[in-house]
Amino acid sequence: MTSTILIEGSARHAHVTQGDLETLFGAGYALRVKRELSQPGEFLSEEKLRVEGPKGAIDRVSILGPVRRATQVELSLTDTRVLGLDAPVRESGDVEGSAPIRLIGPAGSVDLTQGAIVAKRHVHLRPQDAEAIGVVNKQIISVRADGPRAVTFHEVVARVHENFMPAMHIDFDEMNAAGLGGSVQGEILL
Amino acid sequence: MTSTILIEGSARHAHVTQGDLETLFGAGYALRVKRELSQPGEFLSEEKLRVEGPKGAIDRVSILGPVRRATQVELSLTDTRVLGLDAPVRESGDVEGSAPIRLIGPAGSVDLTQGAIVAKRHVHLRPQDAEAIGVVNKQIISVRADGPRAVTFHEVVARVHENFMPAMHIDFDEMNAAGLGGSVQGEILL
Repeated sequence: MTSTILIEGSARHAHVTQGDLETLFGAGYALRVKRELSQPGEFLSEEKLRVEGPKGAIDRVSILGPVRRATQVELSLTDTRVLGLDAPVRESGDVEGSAPIRLIGPAGSVDLTQGAIVAKRHVHLRPQDAEAIGVVNKQIISVRADGPRAVTFHEVVARVHENFMPAMHIDFDEMNAAGLGGSVQGEILL
Repeated sequence: MTSTILIEGSARHAHVTQGDLETLFGAGYALRVKRELSQPGEFLSEEKLRVEGPKGAIDRVSILGPVRRATQVELSLTDTRVLGLDAPVRESGDVEGSAPIRLIGPAGSVDLTQGAIVAKRHVHLRPQDAEAIGVVNKQIISVRADGPRAVTFHEVVARVHENFMPAMHIDFDEMNAAGLGGSVQGEILL
């Protein structure tokens, strides 16, 4: 059984709590929507952060909205080497025991004792997509991306929710390893 | 039929002609051996270059010796985005029509009209390894790297030569996409 799925590259980004947003950007601050993302309700904001680790810093890191219950920074492994962090590969939101990182905004800075992760690659599926493909929520699948640098990604987490738009999310190390640019279709392999 | 092979990450590096070496480092200059590499006769030199593209520069790029008949720079796709180059994925030595790049050394600079490539992933095999595995020179194979970020690399070129040490060479985008650090074993899939 094979099915195709849109593969989208996720650049490094942060999710922030309202409290950390106000520390970074000022009291009463609200994220401004720059562009809607493929997952309904999610958006790229106009706001940018600087992030710092023991070995280096990266400027102009995007913040994705809306605000969340925990602040986290999703980096590529390339980024973690620039920053000097030992960040684990995790699903978004699973920040317990992840790497410390400093966030710097125009109004202040936040020292996270944990929150820096490398996003575990995943596919978003609606229940009807999952049923058609024959996968269940949290199932580990593989996805092949063709081309002159064809790669099959294993250890891909399937996430199923009725509000999702079907898409696979990988970071730019993974995009580059597969020679992908822009949006392409991958083939789900069970 | 499966066989295991050592996977080694290749950092960005340059190969230079004796003429370009002398332009960059001075008349009569010779590369100094810092460390022998896995392929017999190849070495990491003590010398470092700066490389520049239209959008950025990267310092301390290693030069691998011995000198060659054509100067080339092997970059990751991440590097090409930093530099602003549109470098093709190519086998080493296949630089015809590849991207222009500027090299800067302590004694001078070299403007290459072509020579910047992204190395096509490959395995080095001796004739006896190739025969045991059942592949021939230039055959395109796949190699699986296991772990929490398991990947199968397709479009891997098998290169067969009696002077080779068996090893797969991938760049750091590919190492990071597979979550690899240090030397690991991959599984050759035909």
